[in-house]
Amino acid sequence: MGKAAGFTLGELAAALHATLVGDPGRNVTGVAPLDAAGPDDISFLIDPRYGAAAKRSRAGAFLVGPDVSALPGPMLRVAAPQQALIDLLALFHPAPPLTPGIAPSAIVAPDARVDATASIGPLVVVESGAVVGAAVRIHALAFVGRGAEIGGGSILHPRVVVCAGVKLGRGVIVHPGAVIGADGFGYAFDGQVHRKIPQVGGVIIEDDVEIGANTTIDRATLGQTVIRRGTKIDNLVQIAHNVEIGAHSIIVAQVGVSGSSRIGRNVVLAGQVGIADHLTVGDGALILAQSGIARNVEPGERLLGTPARAVVQSKRIWVVQEQLPAMARRLRAAERRLQRLEGQLGIAAPEPPRPETADDER
Amino acid sequence: MGKAAGFTLGELAAALHATLVGDPGRNVTGVAPLDAAGPDDISFLIDPRYGAAAKRSRAGAFLVGPDVSALPGPMLRVAAPQQALIDLLALFHPAPPLTPGIAPSAIVAPDARVDATASIGPLVVVESGAVVGAAVRIHALAFVGRGAEIGGGSILHPRVVVCAGVKLGRGVIVHPGAVIGADGFGYAFDGQVHRKIPQVGGVIIEDDVEIGANTTIDRATLGQTVIRRGTKIDNLVQIAHNVEIGAHSIIVAQVGVSGSSRIGRNVVLAGQVGIADHLTVGDGALILAQSGIARNVEPGERLLGTPARAVVQSKRIWVVQEQLPAMARRLRAAERRLQRLEGQLGIAAPEPPRPETADDER
Amino acid sequence: MGKAAGFTLGELAAALHATLVGDPGRNVTGVAPLDAAGPDDISFLIDPRYGAAAKRSRAGAFLVGPDVSALPGPMLRVAAPQQALIDLLALFHPAPPLTPGIAPSAIVAPDARVDATASIGPLVVVESGAVVGAAVRIHALAFVGRGAEIGGGSILHPRVVVCAGVKLGRGVIVHPGAVIGADGFGYAFDGQVHRKIPQVGGVIIEDDVEIGANTTIDRATLGQTVIRRGTKIDNLVQIAHNVEIGAHSIIVAQVGVSGSSRIGRNVVLAGQVGIADHLTVGDGALILAQSGIARNVEPGERLLGTPARAVVQSKRIWVVQEQLPAMARRLRAAERRLQRLEGQLGIAAPEPPRPETADDER
Repeated sequence: MGKAAGFTLGELAAALHATLVGDPGRNVTGVAPLDAAGPDDISFLIDPRYGAAAKRSRAGAFLVGPDVSALPGPMLRVAAPQQALIDLLALFHPAPPLTPGIAPSAIVAPDARVDATASIGPLVVVESGAVVGAAVRIHALAFVGRGAEIGGGSILHPRVVVCAGVKLGRGVIVHPGAVIGADGFGYAFDGQVHRKIPQVGGVIIEDDVEIGANTTIDRATLGQTVIRRGTKIDNLVQIAHNVEIGAHSIIVAQVGVSGSSRIGRNVVLAGQVGIADHLTVGDGALILAQSGIARNVEPGERLLGTPARAVVQSKRIWVVQEQLPAMARRLRAAERRLQRLEGQLGIAAPEPPRPETADDER
Repeated sequence: MGKAAGFTLGELAAALHATLVGDPGRNVTGVAPLDAAGPDDISFLIDPRYGAAAKRSRAGAFLVGPDVSALPGPMLRVAAPQQALIDLLALFHPAPPLTPGIAPSAIVAPDARVDATASIGPLVVVESGAVVGAAVRIHALAFVGRGAEIGGGSILHPRVVVCAGVKLGRGVIVHPGAVIGADGFGYAFDGQVHRKIPQVGGVIIEDDVEIGANTTIDRATLGQTVIRRGTKIDNLVQIAHNVEIGAHSIIVAQVGVSGSSRIGRNVVLAGQVGIADHLTVGDGALILAQSGIARNVEPGERLLGTPARAVVQSKRIWVVQEQLPAMARRLRAAERRLQRLEGQLGIAAPEPPRPETADDER
Repeated sequence: MGKAAGFTLGELAAALHATLVGDPGRNVTGVAPLDAAGPDDISFLIDPRYGAAAKRSRAGAFLVGPDVSALPGPMLRVAAPQQALIDLLALFHPAPPLTPGIAPSAIVAPDARVDATASIGPLVVVESGAVVGAAVRIHALAFVGRGAEIGGGSILHPRVVVCAGVKLGRGVIVHPGAVIGADGFGYAFDGQVHRKIPQVGGVIIEDDVEIGANTTIDRATLGQTVIRRGTKIDNLVQIAHNVEIGAHSIIVAQVGVSGSSRIGRNVVLAGQVGIADHLTVGDGALILAQSGIARNVEPGERLLGTPARAVVQSKRIWVVQEQLPAMARRLRAAERRLQRLEGQLGIAAPEPPRPETADDER
């Protein structure tokens, strides 16, 4: 999907504000990792651990940071190579051109307001009163419910569902199959059945949020479920009703956040983490993979495990756990040795600790 | 999305069978939580922990239980305020009117039987032999497979998939993206490859079940996967082939129930719980979040953790785990003290316990 | 959904290469489990634990292995009854006939290459440059992106999304709602915001892979995400960018595999397992349910738990954990006994071990 003609290293150096070490007339036609790159590709060395791979690479040129030298080819040197890699990839893989207009097979309600610069793909449904902003791309088979709003420049990939009344800011990207604004999970048991509590609130997704494939973000019971600016959410994540997630947080795949919990800004929830309901996770907290959070988390805390504890503490406990069977044997041996010593000294055996079965009472 | 004209407190008192303390002519136009409500809203105080928030609230009226008094505004007093809140929300947010008929863009097989009072939205597919009952709402882009049946009053939200032959009872609600009746995960390894075991059974969803967004419920290998009456299933839940879930159970988001397991009635499986295959979970059991169930569960058991243990026992173990590194040090210290005492008394050191590496054999 | 006319036992014996004990003219019209089968059904006894149920069964005939006898009806005896059951089910439940052609409501780009023997269902979207092979079945509401390729004999169930450029081999089955080729989850924090790293790689799904409902498999950042031949993936699984999964592996529901990890061949990842990024799981490894893998796994290892340990070791630790509260009490008692002995012998108390709070430092 690259740009066949490619770029000269001189052109790339100018575009990336890079210092070129090598021939500015040399042409490259693609970007590839160190081990896959050939002479027509530019590769990159961002993590110094890959230095040896870079020396072996057949790449025609290298994007590198300030401290790299002695690679087998021309180098484009920049201060922040990972940021420059983003620009490099965007040069070789520009977004496909936007073709404004509504596909003939799309079903757009007469009173929906679709900006003239937006692109509505085949078999898309846009319901009554929905608002679609400038340069929005709505891909095939997506659904925009009654009164929903899609901010300028946003992208709804194929088969996204944006339910009635949900509001997306500008530059939001939603991946296939995500569902934004389904009913929250709320019932009141009346002694016989679980009666459904009407879920009449909304969802607000702020600017520059990205939402992964098949992720679900429920509407609030009352009020709003809110995802703040710049937060990135991976695939198959569950965000329950009335949750609020602060700006610039990272929510990795298969995380679940239960109802009414508030996640701060710059938080990282790693894969498969679960957050119980009505909790607060402070700004900058880091929750490692699979952890289960059942209490409030202070800003900047780094937690691991179920129950979640400070990372270093959980790891220390895990190490000692390995010795647990041996500790049980050693404790029994110590008790026997104590008994022998007490016998030797004629000391009465102490009252034994309560039996283990005492632990089983409820 | 509320009813702009609103209701007088007198009208609400009549509708909710409430005792009104205040002016029956006063009008409210919406329902809002205590902290968000303004003078035109009615709010509610169900959980006494929010009493202080209620006293601060600017709400124009309050729905309250029997023991509440001294709030800064008129009160509608009822015996069961949470149940009354459901009625109140339904008054202000009535279901949108049902428009019977089949959207011109829907693809409905000629031999499908669609009740004249059902509503089939745009770009819906209803395959051959399917049966759609009275007052059913099938929203845009949903799919109803060959021979499937949708009972009266059920709602399929946008983009639901109901596969061939699946049977839904009356009043079932299915949220966007849910897939009911995909093949179960069954293979037989023939020494070379995993051969697919045809999954030729069905799925039965009884009356008043609700199924969350992007949840998957697989068809049985033979026989039926069954979800009994009134059970509520949250988002991103996996129900494997031949599972049976009893009536009025609650299955929270991201739970997985493995093949052929039988979950009782009035069971609660909290978020991210996993149930292994071919197990029985008794009526009324409560399994707390993230627990892993690898054995049968008795009726009424309350379990937590992996491995799952009685809640109180798991919590006690978790508390002691925090001391585990210290316990390891204290045990080593005790052994040294024993050695010193034994030396003092001229007692031969006992045979040491088996080395820890003995724990590593398989 | 069976074949109403059925088969004689003679016909079945010939088709299954079975030895018939009983009347070859007897007719059966369906396959059913032992407890549900009636006189017109053939049942099966594969697992000897169900011998008693077989003796009670009302089935009209039984498919059995070499060592079974004395059942209450005719027997079809085969060397490998589970394999024969697959053939038996396929006889009674043949795949619905393939009707080649493109449904009038499907939107197929003029330059897509769709084989004349392929079947494209209603409201399917096939974008520009896509290639659809012989005898492929693409069911209703599915999406095949720009330049994607679907190998011969593959089945895309309703509402599958195959994104641009993704390549599926022959005989691939994809269940409803699965998303193949959404963007990987990659960002670079620039000090202010998480900048999106363009995800410009692809996905390769080799022959005979099966992918479950609502599962997500992300495209690579650069290069390819690869699922090798014959691997079976259950529902709601997350496969991140640049992952490679070897041939004939089994990935059970709700598993998550993080970016760039390499899973070997003949691996089993049981339900809800999480694999961290950039790891290697060796051929033939078995990871039991809910385990969290944060290190490389050797070929053939069998792991359980978080942190994952050898199955037997995790189970032994779990057993000892139950005694942990009692061990804490017994250790305190032993320390008191030591103190008493030391006092008796006039030995100075040793320096106490470091206080527990020392464990809490970061």
